[in-house]
Amino acid sequence: MTYCVAVVLDAGMIFASDSRTNAGVDQIATFRKMRTFERASDRVIVVLSSGNLAVTQSAINLLDQRSRADDDQATVWNVPSMFDVASLLGDALRDVRRRDGPHLSQSNVDSSASFIIGGQVVGEQQRLFNIYSEGNFIEATRETPFFQIGETKYGRPIIDRVITSGTDLQEAAKCLLVSFDSTMRSNISVGLPIDLLCYRSDSFHIAYQRTITEGDPYFTMIHSQWGAGLRKVFAELPNPYWDDGTSHDSQAV
Amino acid sequence: MTYCVAVVLDAGMIFASDSRTNAGVDQIATFRKMRTFERASDRVIVVLSSGNLAVTQSAINLLDQRSRADDDQATVWNVPSMFDVASLLGDALRDVRRRDGPHLSQSNVDSSASFIIGGQVVGEQQRLFNIYSEGNFIEATRETPFFQIGETKYGRPIIDRVITSGTDLQEAAKCLLVSFDSTMRSNISVGLPIDLLCYRSDSFHIAYQRTITEGDPYFTMIHSQWGAGLRKVFAELPNPYWDDGTSHDSQAV
Repeated sequence: MTYCVAVVLDAGMIFASDSRTNAGVDQIATFRKMRTFERASDRVIVVLSSGNLAVTQSAINLLDQRSRADDDQATVWNVPSMFDVASLLGDALRDVRRRDGPHLSQSNVDSSASFIIGGQVVGEQQRLFNIYSEGNFIEATRETPFFQIGETKYGRPIIDRVITSGTDLQEAAKCLLVSFDSTMRSNISVGLPIDLLCYRSDSFHIAYQRTITEGDPYFTMIHSQWGAGLRKVFAELPNPYWDDGTSHDSQAV
Repeated sequence: MTYCVAVVLDAGMIFASDSRTNAGVDQIATFRKMRTFERASDRVIVVLSSGNLAVTQSAINLLDQRSRADDDQATVWNVPSMFDVASLLGDALRDVRRRDGPHLSQSNVDSSASFIIGGQVVGEQQRLFNIYSEGNFIEATRETPFFQIGETKYGRPIIDRVITSGTDLQEAAKCLLVSFDSTMRSNISVGLPIDLLCYRSDSFHIAYQRTITEGDPYFTMIHSQWGAGLRKVFAELPNPYWDDGTSHDSQAV
């Protein structure tokens, strides 16, 4: 399983992804799910991937290999918009699934895969896309400034409560780490290390990129203080007052 | 969609279920998903249901109808254990799916359904089961004293953090309502009213049963104080300290 999330804010973008891959519980391995394409003063592109690992790796390798070709093809390095970049990745994904999908189907292996791809190309605003298994995609808006892929539900409530387009970058990074903490607590197939990347709007270079491993002091603090804080808030909520025996109205047969 | 959850504690059991049913977003209706069978001093049985509504209703109707037959069949009213009760419901579910399943498949309609069934029959401890679509089932234990069915993930983190076998009944009821609040915030297909039922261990009658509707003062308080408390805990967590420009180690190509 996988958990990846990205937000696009007025101030910039934050991307985060876990690193756990499993094919059954006895085949667990660490694979990074974040890939960056950066050319200073021109473009920063970040890709997060979820789904069949052979498919996502092949699609990104194809995207990368095509970008190194000597001909006049459109590539991640020369297209004028993030929309075009997203299309290129969608095309690469379709090519891989066209080639490998039928073979996987024969063994009842799921070839589905999805990506979050975002960043900024000089001449336009920063943009964020969610690419589906079929290679089509949707774009984040001010009203819904984030995408999640993989195991999305456990970590969603805190994002719903905190993130708006006006959230600052530090707070958004904190929010995504809380979201990872909730996810990792409830699903053991999402695991450390977490790759975290911050991009500042209109900077055209990566502001910072960190790999959060076991024992990282900040993540350990988040884990313990968030858990303790939740339990405190919960303890301070009054108990229900119904337990007086007067409200018994059972529908007994 | 649906959200149902039940816990079995040293002190007793709490059951909760929402009431929203949808077949597409334009066919939303209210159907109760909690059914009780109670005979004072002898047995209390509570069923929560999720999945295809025609299937779950038919299975419970079949269980009920068979319990009214005049012959010597095993029924919810005469079997000596909750294990037997769970088997009867699993059988009823299998009968319904055997009859209706092929017709539903022809229209690509999912006939899957699942139940939580729990309670106590005189002569044994209280017990809690999760019945799968196939009619087989598992039983809750001291280590995992709860089951959820339907839209389970949004509301799971608070249960993971709070519930143990030693949790008291009031606190467990509060926890389940917080869990519903998180679920309803992230999935509009889970909705009020919530049916909530409390059973005290070895009492052989329902302690209380409430229907929590729009505007219920306790649930409204939970909703606002929990949200405010979470935001406060979040605000008090220190921001990450990495944003100093020194940790930039991008994997730029």
